[in-house]
Amino acid sequence: RYGQAEADNQIGAATGLAYTQAGGDTLSIEISLFKGTGKLTLTGKLGDVMKESAQAAFSYIRSRADELKIEQDFHEKYDVHIHVPEGATPKDGPSAGITMATALVSALTNRPVRKEVGMTGEITLRGRVLPIGGLKEKALSAHRAGLKTIIIPEENNKDLEDIPESVRKGLKFIKVKHLDEVLEHALLPEKVSQS
Amino acid sequence: RYGQAEADNQIGAATGLAYTQAGGDTLSIEISLFKGTGKLTLTGKLGDVMKESAQAAFSYIRSRADELKIEQDFHEKYDVHIHVPEGATPKDGPSAGITMATALVSALTNRPVRKEVGMTGEITLRGRVLPIGGLKEKALSAHRAGLKTIIIPEENNKDLEDIPESVRKGLKFIKVKHLDEVLEHALLPEKVSQS
Amino acid sequence: RYGQAEADNQIGAATGLAYTQAGGDTLSIEISLFKGTGKLTLTGKLGDVMKESAQAAFSYIRSRADELKIEQDFHEKYDVHIHVPEGATPKDGPSAGITMATALVSALTNRPVRKEVGMTGEITLRGRVLPIGGLKEKALSAHRAGLKTIIIPEENNKDLEDIPESVRKGLKFIKVKHLDEVLEHALLPEKVSQS
Amino acid sequence: RYGQAEADNQIGAATGLAYTQAGGDTLSIEISLFKGTGKLTLTGKLGDVMKESAQAAFSYIRSRADELKIEQDFHEKYDVHIHVPEGATPKDGPSAGITMATALVSALTNRPVRKEVGMTGEITLRGRVLPIGGLKEKALSAHRAGLKTIIIPEENNKDLEDIPESVRKGLKFIKVKHLDEVLEHALLPEKVSQS
Amino acid sequence: RYGQAEADNQIGAATGLAYTQAGGDTLSIEISLFKGTGKLTLTGKLGDVMKESAQAAFSYIRSRADELKIEQDFHEKYDVHIHVPEGATPKDGPSAGITMATALVSALTNRPVRKEVGMTGEITLRGRVLPIGGLKEKALSAHRAGLKTIIIPEENNKDLEDIPESVRKGLKFIKVKHLDEVLEHALLPEKVSQS
Amino acid sequence: RYGQAEADNQIGAATGLAYTQAGGDTLSIEISLFKGTGKLTLTGKLGDVMKESAQAAFSYIRSRADELKIEQDFHEKYDVHIHVPEGATPKDGPSAGITMATALVSALTNRPVRKEVGMTGEITLRGRVLPIGGLKEKALSAHRAGLKTIIIPEENNKDLEDIPESVRKGLKFIKVKHLDEVLEHALLPEKVSQS
Ligand SMILES: [Ca+2]
Ligand SMILES: [Ca+2]
Ligand SMILES: [Ca+2]
Ligand SMILES: [Ca+2]
Ligand SMILES: [Ca+2]
Ligand SMILES: [Ca+2]
Ligand SMILES: [Ca+2]
Ligand SMILES: [Ca+2]
Ligand SMILES: [Ca+2]
Ligand SMILES: [Ca+2]
Ligand SMILES: [Ca+2]
Ligand SMILES: [Ca+2]
Repeated sequence: RYGQAEADNQIGAATGLAYTQAGGDTLSIEISLFKGTGKLTLTGKLGDVMKESAQAAFSYIRSRADELKIEQDFHEKYDVHIHVPEGATPKDGPSAGITMATALVSALTNRPVRKEVGMTGEITLRGRVLPIGGLKEKALSAHRAGLKTIIIPEENNKDLEDIPESVRKGLKFIKVKHLDEVLEHALLPEKVSQS
Repeated sequence: RYGQAEADNQIGAATGLAYTQAGGDTLSIEISLFKGTGKLTLTGKLGDVMKESAQAAFSYIRSRADELKIEQDFHEKYDVHIHVPEGATPKDGPSAGITMATALVSALTNRPVRKEVGMTGEITLRGRVLPIGGLKEKALSAHRAGLKTIIIPEENNKDLEDIPESVRKGLKFIKVKHLDEVLEHALLPEKVSQS
Repeated sequence: RYGQAEADNQIGAATGLAYTQAGGDTLSIEISLFKGTGKLTLTGKLGDVMKESAQAAFSYIRSRADELKIEQDFHEKYDVHIHVPEGATPKDGPSAGITMATALVSALTNRPVRKEVGMTGEITLRGRVLPIGGLKEKALSAHRAGLKTIIIPEENNKDLEDIPESVRKGLKFIKVKHLDEVLEHALLPEKVSQS
Repeated sequence: RYGQAEADNQIGAATGLAYTQAGGDTLSIEISLFKGTGKLTLTGKLGDVMKESAQAAFSYIRSRADELKIEQDFHEKYDVHIHVPEGATPKDGPSAGITMATALVSALTNRPVRKEVGMTGEITLRGRVLPIGGLKEKALSAHRAGLKTIIIPEENNKDLEDIPESVRKGLKFIKVKHLDEVLEHALLPEKVSQS
Repeated sequence: RYGQAEADNQIGAATGLAYTQAGGDTLSIEISLFKGTGKLTLTGKLGDVMKESAQAAFSYIRSRADELKIEQDFHEKYDVHIHVPEGATPKDGPSAGITMATALVSALTNRPVRKEVGMTGEITLRGRVLPIGGLKEKALSAHRAGLKTIIIPEENNKDLEDIPESVRKGLKFIKVKHLDEVLEHALLPEKVSQS
Repeated sequence: RYGQAEADNQIGAATGLAYTQAGGDTLSIEISLFKGTGKLTLTGKLGDVMKESAQAAFSYIRSRADELKIEQDFHEKYDVHIHVPEGATPKDGPSAGITMATALVSALTNRPVRKEVGMTGEITLRGRVLPIGGLKEKALSAHRAGLKTIIIPEENNKDLEDIPESVRKGLKFIKVKHLDEVLEHALLPEKVSQS
């Protein structure tokens, strides 16, 4: 089952790009935030590397809470559930790191994620964005899913030449070195609830 | 041992549809709710994917407690035991997601589940219903068990043509995209206890 | 080592029937109840399915405490140890479910279990009794052990014909659909301690 | 390394008899009791069955604390460490059950264990003593170690004929059905400390 | 992907040298420190030996807190997350011990790590620095990454002769016996924040 | 890497003797003691038997705290970290038992361990010292490392004859039956700190 771009700008959900033996695919990252005591739940048949990736994203956001306009003590006031649908499909690797960080910042700041944006990149504890594998296949799946923009690690610039011209023309590639740039391009301003 | 439709509209029990190497079968999901401290127990030889599926169902309901007319703090006021009988049979996969969600809402709202309804579909953290495999075999087992209506993911519409005409005529198929639609078709109004 | 019927009506001990590759055997379920904090200990080289079976029995009794004349909060006031002797023999499967439930109710209500009764059947969260395998071998071992009555799931009625006539005549078979019937036939009135 | 009978009547230590592929051997069970909070530590490369055996012994004693003149709440006032020396040798099976129970009662009542006594037998939650394997080899090792008396399950009576006459004559066999009998024969009166 | 020296002197990040089947590589150790309750998180696909190495580094620092001008109770006032990027690459062995210790002291004292320094060496509970393997390959990768100085265990002095002259001339080797010497050469004075 | 005798009399560190497939080696046991809550950490790639050995040593010392002039409640007032360096080398077996006990008593009493002493022997809960394997190889490594005295179990007396005369003459062998004797020969009087 091939992925599709989201129909709306979502809060707490972002679109990643996966690379498996079967080729590329889009990956939906969903986050629910609950008033709670700091429990982190990770589901969706995630491998250890992907789970550690979520922890790195979480710690980065915790270390930058002030700058991100997030409550300093969010990590102990909320329970966070990160789920990656299509629960029967095993998922692993660090390349969803920036997607999980983006969805988490979105959920914590009430800022929607642009629905036409996909992204791929490993995140480190200091927010650096490290290169990933399978960029060509990921770009193909992003294109097929109807995404318009994909955010990629700057160190993957050299792999753009491998992507077929037709696909390359249909996508805007944003090359980044740090999560700050990811958030700038992926998030919309805070959604104010109407009453 | 083939399943059978429930004899009565039950509170806290719903009928799912399973697809195994041996073909399709119905699957009873039983839930007991206790005044407690928020412990979740899952039994019935469930695989990891099915357990994660229960967690996703649980989180979805927690995130929508108000709309579902459930106490906001149910997750810490009750112990929940989800059991899937025929304890010797291994069960796995995400397709019981909407069945577990339905049984849980039933238990928490005191609304009975219609006894003639079966259902199958993966649930995500936001309540979306994702497609499943083995629809043909599941429909056959639902028919054999005497069910009248089965709720399926809209994305499985294309698989209806594979079901033998005789079975297709004996069942009403309700295609859904979101758990809200599942609950609307599967639950009866709250049962008021007589005193 | 073949089992034998108990010499006395016991409180907190019931006789199950097991079916292994080596044939049928009786199975003693022993329960000790302690003033405590709700810890459940399961010993006797029990497999996961048998342990889940004990949890289902426990939850059923917890959900029916009032009707069974058991203190509502027994699950947090007592530590419960369920042991199945002959600790070197691996035991598994759900068919000791009703035996564990019966021994537990006996221990909690101070009602002795009739020493001439054996039983086999899976229990669900709602107390339904589901069919089991190996009825013929179980009946043979019950007969050999000197039991007079065995309680079986109603759905196993069709398997009675496979039991040799000599054994069938020496045993009274009670067919049940629900644990309530099991308790009715297996338990004696509360034993009043003499002082 | 062959075992030897203890040089003194010890408190909190008893001699069991093991049966391994290499033949029979004596087994020292050592217990240390600490003012604590009820932690149970089991060491000596013990298999799961032997650990469960220790739990059964512990529960039996807890259920009979009054009759054994042990403080009712010993299980939460003391930390108990049970160790079986020769830590590199794997040990398993339920036949050290009565030895662990005896050492534990000794430690809790301050009554020394007779140094010339060895024992073997499975214990159940109600203190029944069940038969064991390898009696012949166990008797040989007891004899070699200089023990004078060995306590065995009554159901093993039939195996005495397999023990060589010379060994049988050098040992007194006490056949028991219940732990009460074991304690009666293995324990001396409480040792009063001199000041 | 070959490592590169850091662009700036970092607080809480140090550069180690790894030796894998594929040759040598640099290894970034990142540390985040949070006001917390003493939780230690280790991520980056670290093997057990590397995790134990982190624990030894942690305990050494705890035992020397006063001399290192670190708050005595840091271990219970902060949560520490140690992450080693390139999360898909398995990492193991004790040779990152002094790197983890250095990054941790840096984070706790606010002293930056010199960006041109790499290091390798096992750390013990008393701060001794033990020899490591693969010095030649590690030196090559340090050189390639643009590092200027590498700190090595004194016991590895004998392995310097194996490093090609061109590489040996481009690097300054500091041989140490104790972590104190490592810190002296790797850390800059405390960075005073400007306001 | 062959071991060497310590350069100084250390507090909280003792030298054991290991026997591996590669022959004998010395083994450094390092202990750090922290004001804490009773947490025991064991690192250095230790196998289960060696970990249990540490627990036995710990319990023996706890049971004899008064006689050893150690605070009765040390086990809940301190965190203890026991580390065995050369973290990449797997270590197992019970023969480091008396070494761990000696290092622990040293740390708790502030008495230095004589630097010229090595030791090997299993410890039981009552402080008995049981025989070990590989005495010949262990003696060779002790000699090579420059140790002068080695403490061995009395039951290993018979193995002394297997040690080459040259080595036997260079070492003093102290044969012991109980940990009390080990401590007497290995520990110096309490070190009084100068101010
Ligand atoms: Ca997909
Ligand atoms: Ca290229
Ligand atoms: Ca079935
Ligand atoms: Ca089709
Ligand atoms: Ca049997
Ligand atoms: Ca039949
Ligand atoms: Ca032995
Ligand atoms: Ca015989
Ligand atoms: Ca690299
Ligand atoms: Ca060399
Ligand atoms: Ca060595
Ligand atoms: Ca010899």
